[in-house]
Amino acid sequence: QGILERLDAGEIVIGDGGFVFALEKRGYVKAGPWTPEATVEHPEAVRQLHREFLRAGSNVLQTFTFYASEDKLENRGNYVAEKISCQKVNEAACDIAREVANEGDALVAGGVSQTPSYLSCKDKTEVKAAFRKQLDVFMKKNVDFLIAEYFEHVEEAVWAVEVLKESGKPVAATMCIGPEGDMHGVPPGQCAVQLVKAGASIVGVNCHFDPDTSLETVKLMKEGLQAAKLKAHLMSQPLAFHTPDCGKQGFIDLPEFPFGLEPRIVTRWDIQKYARKAYDLGIRYIGGCCGFEPYHVRAIAEELAPERGFLPEASEKHGSWGDSLSMHTKPWVRARARKEYWENLKPASGRPYCPSMSKPDGWGVTKGARELMQQKEATSEQQLKELFQKQKF
Amino acid sequence: QGILERLDAGEIVIGDGGFVFALEKRGYVKAGPWTPEATVEHPEAVRQLHREFLRAGSNVLQTFTFYASEDKLENRGNYVAEKISCQKVNEAACDIAREVANEGDALVAGGVSQTPSYLSCKDKTEVKAAFRKQLDVFMKKNVDFLIAEYFEHVEEAVWAVEVLKESGKPVAATMCIGPEGDMHGVPPGQCAVQLVKAGASIVGVNCHFDPDTSLETVKLMKEGLQAAKLKAHLMSQPLAFHTPDCGKQGFIDLPEFPFGLEPRIVTRWDIQKYARKAYDLGIRYIGGCCGFEPYHVRAIAEELAPERGFLPEASEKHGSWGDSLSMHTKPWVRARARKEYWENLKPASGRPYCPSMSKPDGWGVTKGARELMQQKEATSEQQLKELFQKQKF
Amino acid sequence: QGILERLDAGEIVIGDGGFVFALEKRGYVKAGPWTPEATVEHPEAVRQLHREFLRAGSNVLQTFTFYASEDKLENRGNYVAEKISCQKVNEAACDIAREVANEGDALVAGGVSQTPSYLSCKDKTEVKAAFRKQLDVFMKKNVDFLIAEYFEHVEEAVWAVEVLKESGKPVAATMCIGPEGDMHGVPPGQCAVQLVKAGASIVGVNCHFDPDTSLETVKLMKEGLQAAKLKAHLMSQPLAFHTPDCGKQGFIDLPEFPFGLEPRIVTRWDIQKYARKAYDLGIRYIGGCCGFEPYHVRAIAEELAPERGFLPEASEKHGSWGDSLSMHTKPWVRARARKEYWENLKPASGRPYCPSMSKPDGWGVTKGARELMQQKEATSEQQLKELFQKQKF
Amino acid sequence: QGILERLDAGEIVIGDGGFVFALEKRGYVKAGPWTPEATVEHPEAVRQLHREFLRAGSNVLQTFTFYASEDKLENRGNYVAEKISCQKVNEAACDIAREVANEGDALVAGGVSQTPSYLSCKDKTEVKAAFRKQLDVFMKKNVDFLIAEYFEHVEEAVWAVEVLKESGKPVAATMCIGPEGDMHGVPPGQCAVQLVKAGASIVGVNCHFDPDTSLETVKLMKEGLQAAKLKAHLMSQPLAFHTPDCGKQGFIDLPEFPFGLEPRIVTRWDIQKYARKAYDLGIRYIGGCCGFEPYHVRAIAEELAPERGFLPEASEKHGSWGDSLSMHTKPWVRARARKEYWENLKPASGRPYCPSMSKPDGWGVTKGARELMQQKEATSEQQLKELFQKQKF
Repeated sequence: QGILERLDAGEIVIGDGGFVFALEKRGYVKAGPWTPEATVEHPEAVRQLHREFLRAGSNVLQTFTFYASEDKLENRGNYVAEKISCQKVNEAACDIAREVANEGDALVAGGVSQTPSYLSCKDKTEVKAAFRKQLDVFMKKNVDFLIAEYFEHVEEAVWAVEVLKESGKPVAATMCIGPEGDMHGVPPGQCAVQLVKAGASIVGVNCHFDPDTSLETVKLMKEGLQAAKLKAHLMSQPLAFHTPDCGKQGFIDLPEFPFGLEPRIVTRWDIQKYARKAYDLGIRYIGGCCGFEPYHVRAIAEELAPERGFLPEASEKHGSWGDSLSMHTKPWVRARARKEYWENLKPASGRPYCPSMSKPDGWGVTKGARELMQQKEATSEQQLKELFQKQKF
Repeated sequence: QGILERLDAGEIVIGDGGFVFALEKRGYVKAGPWTPEATVEHPEAVRQLHREFLRAGSNVLQTFTFYASEDKLENRGNYVAEKISCQKVNEAACDIAREVANEGDALVAGGVSQTPSYLSCKDKTEVKAAFRKQLDVFMKKNVDFLIAEYFEHVEEAVWAVEVLKESGKPVAATMCIGPEGDMHGVPPGQCAVQLVKAGASIVGVNCHFDPDTSLETVKLMKEGLQAAKLKAHLMSQPLAFHTPDCGKQGFIDLPEFPFGLEPRIVTRWDIQKYARKAYDLGIRYIGGCCGFEPYHVRAIAEELAPERGFLPEASEKHGSWGDSLSMHTKPWVRARARKEYWENLKPASGRPYCPSMSKPDGWGVTKGARELMQQKEATSEQQLKELFQKQKF
Repeated sequence: QGILERLDAGEIVIGDGGFVFALEKRGYVKAGPWTPEATVEHPEAVRQLHREFLRAGSNVLQTFTFYASEDKLENRGNYVAEKISCQKVNEAACDIAREVANEGDALVAGGVSQTPSYLSCKDKTEVKAAFRKQLDVFMKKNVDFLIAEYFEHVEEAVWAVEVLKESGKPVAATMCIGPEGDMHGVPPGQCAVQLVKAGASIVGVNCHFDPDTSLETVKLMKEGLQAAKLKAHLMSQPLAFHTPDCGKQGFIDLPEFPFGLEPRIVTRWDIQKYARKAYDLGIRYIGGCCGFEPYHVRAIAEELAPERGFLPEASEKHGSWGDSLSMHTKPWVRARARKEYWENLKPASGRPYCPSMSKPDGWGVTKGARELMQQKEATSEQQLKELFQKQKF
Repeated sequence: QGILERLDAGEIVIGDGGFVFALEKRGYVKAGPWTPEATVEHPEAVRQLHREFLRAGSNVLQTFTFYASEDKLENRGNYVAEKISCQKVNEAACDIAREVANEGDALVAGGVSQTPSYLSCKDKTEVKAAFRKQLDVFMKKNVDFLIAEYFEHVEEAVWAVEVLKESGKPVAATMCIGPEGDMHGVPPGQCAVQLVKAGASIVGVNCHFDPDTSLETVKLMKEGLQAAKLKAHLMSQPLAFHTPDCGKQGFIDLPEFPFGLEPRIVTRWDIQKYARKAYDLGIRYIGGCCGFEPYHVRAIAEELAPERGFLPEASEKHGSWGDSLSMHTKPWVRARARKEYWENLKPASGRPYCPSMSKPDGWGVTKGARELMQQKEATSEQQLKELFQKQKF
């Protein structure tokens, strides 16, 4: 059964988690470029992560093709010793995802995301050409459906949807925006309307914000669609990091991004609350993005097990709400084998010198330095680098 | 070259990370029993984790045989659908570790840990028999050396060392204790002396405490050995969780154990500081335990790269001190591509309602309830369970 | 010059601080009843506090007549050994305020606040009679103007203003509400409109919320007046406690109220920011309420010294922005004698086990208990007390 | 009855609180110089504070002569418009204290503290001359006993005690040190021994550290005296600020000193715990220093009321353990009228962006700058000032 058949029938579809962050910690992706050449260099590592998500309950395996457009790979990929072609990366991603999907009951979704071409003001034709190159691979490998995700500008997202629609396959579209809307100020409700009008059957958000903030944004999208009398399925794939203190650009602006986010990681219990809240809001495609590990996906599946009627495979290694602790040696640990305990726990950070919240760019980069950087942004990369070195900020 | 040849030559040996916590998050180990039947059920998952540690710089791959003594597996393992024999689990663990070790330059270490037999006051003969059963497998599979680890009582650790020494192979011994010493009150210095006298060539600590606390304990061991004019190599494999607020039994007593520890996870920068401090203290076998993911092990290897003269394989996907961020799109993220930034960052938790420290058992279990549990501990499991249910604590 | 002449001329008028909290800490007011019998019992203590506010820059001395209506004093005052009459308390308050006002250039304002009569649903005539009894004293003692303050219901505030207007003197009216409006749900803008229509020349808020929240509320009042094309002077007298986490009833619902609020006390630098923000919003009557000590009032006067052209008397004992530290013995303390330091400091609590925010009623009182209490509220005091004792919540 | 008669009889003697901090907030003392010219300029303010402490339970009123040695007043006092002589300040302090002491049952203690002469390496004769000048006034005004307090170096404290002993009156001596000992590294136990040998009948600590740390120090003093088989009464007058994170020089090194300490202020409940702990340790002269307001002193008296058999006068305005809240309007506030509630409350700071602990000098002053300042300390004041200005730290 295809993605739309499932959603139309009222089924809950569970997405997967975040590949770039998980594989960065495992040693296969480089933070900064964040490109997915691991599909060619270390297919076994990518395969294993897919398998873990499948086991955890994912109904969709997204091809690991994030930032795998040709312009991005060229731009950034030059640190890879032997140049790996865009086509090879995308093809390998499709093959691995399909291989694992066949081990269970999952769909394969081909994904495209925002491009350097758009950010450097290339025109519509050129940007669309970049998407089309990835789409060619997805068609050749016959993925089940397509996702346009991680767009900061609805204009580019619409172009992506238009290209993906040429395939005749179902298209989902998610933006990495918060309640304030896209980088040009288009509010979430209006973004959703434009995406549906462009042909997306499923709309929502992914990345950049924590579960709570992301659900707020999807709520605004839902209201926008209702006001415009449009119909679409809703989808959410938030971060697994708490980000109540971040601004319009989400967690990228937090001082902790990307190497000091540990204290913000959400627990499995936070995810169960997220899954329930998403369900109650009418979202039926529920997954995660950066920070989501397999156990976070399993928490979605466990929370919604009553509605779905079954548990994921990986729950054979997990007691609901800490139940497995009833087998622990110490009686005071056994006493934690109950829902009430974990539901109410307020975990400590173990960092007495640290704040509970931080201000975007409040740390490390002085206001003056930031202004300088923004102003100098127009000039050459080299000049900027020299400025940095001289000023040591 | 064997473990002792390396250490005697003054080399730094990097250990691996924590299997039970990493595989629990990946969906292959159950918290509570914490037993390693995954070696038989899902060898590909265990193999992949070994591979990631190898790539990150580990010079030793420990067989995934934690809590794999027969008494433990029988006691706890009955939740496994088809009963898997102790021997099979241990054999598979050896095979997988050897297979991956051969992909690089790593040694295989067979490990034993504390037994239910000792805790339920079985005599020396019976406890030693349990260790011998595991040792038989290690000899058959010809591991490179042996580790007795995760012991709360030095008496049991000494028995383990005595059994392992029968093999003629080098023996390392680590206890899961803090500066206050073992559960019978034997101070760290004395523990070290007893272990070396029993035949251990390498001594130290693993698990239960954070890097800082663990190093304090090893320091006390070092001083104990010096006072007794004994010589041994030092070893540390701490948690990757901050635990400044825990008592004698370490992180097990923290209210967050084991499902709410996320905000306590240490960053890669914390690990670099740990590696340097361990090195300066004279420790040459430096690794990790629960919470240590491959990127934490890589951080040890990167910090000590100047001394060792080379970087691990996984560093091809990691710029030293955030260097890879110099390729990031946003200039203020690029400005984080420097050591000073990450070294000084105090990461926030994003949890405004939460404390930075928590008191062991200060939450959820009242003092009265805890006393009751301890007092009732002598009675049957069933009775205790009924007590719990009636009192709902 | 009267209060309206000053405000009409564009002058900044600085109010005083909070009497009940300051005198509770000095040992003259009892928390719980919060009644002002100290004006009779210990006039020297009340006089000294007035004097300190005057010295700190207050242009208005409010008579210490908070909760000094007859019904309140009767209801609560019976713990006072010798019964002191309502009239005596109010008269003494006027005499003391006038005596100190004459030492400088300050006006005396007579104040009334919410009554038990209104809360127990007495009718308009009865409630107005209570205000009139206090007003009689204020007229006899010839105060300069009148303030109706600390009202949770705009209906009662309007009645108070109507009574006070009978005097012919200028009337100011402030409510202890936040942006959500009064206890019956009337929004701030509408409250302001009703108060001005009833005859108030100055409107605003006092107590219950921190400076930031209070200024938000005054902003809504300002907008309400503009929409209704009404004119009035604006006034704010917030708490000197941080309360970002409290609900509709303000700090009374915080678990720390009233004996554990210390970590929330605002610094003098927080007050300087408040004063500037209030000024920029167009507020010209700027003072404080509970928690405001003389040094907080002085901080208002120092921040607005450039606009006013002079410093208060107490500034002879205070260097602007830490300037006096340039005389300190230790050089690193001398280095703090600059605005940039104090403006940016994020003060620590020194309490590692404590949260930065707490939820109203999240502590100590379970939801069930609270519901029970509210439901039982209709029954007798005695019954409720018994319930408490039985349940020990 | 004199101080020694009381203590010898086993009575608890309650000290007073901190004058410089309390009067700074009231507008009569300047932070930085911290000198007590208010005794001449505003005797009514000093008198009122004495009165509040007396009412709160103080059995000793210390003359407000802190930093009132001639060298200090000359050094610092030149900001006072009309030069006020050292003698006048000290005489007025004695008169005010005596006047208020006569209103109740309190003793007057004349106090001397560390001198600029000692810090600038003047010799013993010169330093002693400074103390003698103050002593002359105390003798003329016939105070009841003498206190040498706030000494960072035991050598200077011993000189002070020797001078004060010339009077024939009982002498108490407290140092502002922590468990690490005095600034020359003399441990607390040895400090106590030297002070008693010099003639002090009462020894202990005051200022610089929070109650818990101060009690640790007194415990070390007690042990030192026991080891030396010396007898003396013990005394403690700590800060009313939490300072778990400060170093050898106490709260002066905290970044929040002295204008951002608000979140560290201890509650009355913290003080009750302190009073009990001090009593259990054998301390019988229990008071406070900077940060102690009258309600803190009352908390000592209330905690020890069972032992003493009576409550202080100010308790007529305070219900034990929140009891007065049983008269509050809202039932959930009434529910706080119980010991268990306040004893266990962990108060929040209401500051989500702020840490719970800060490191001494971790903020604002870089390590380099601090070293520079220390190194340049030897040079002239003017030079240092120029350095500051150039570097703008």
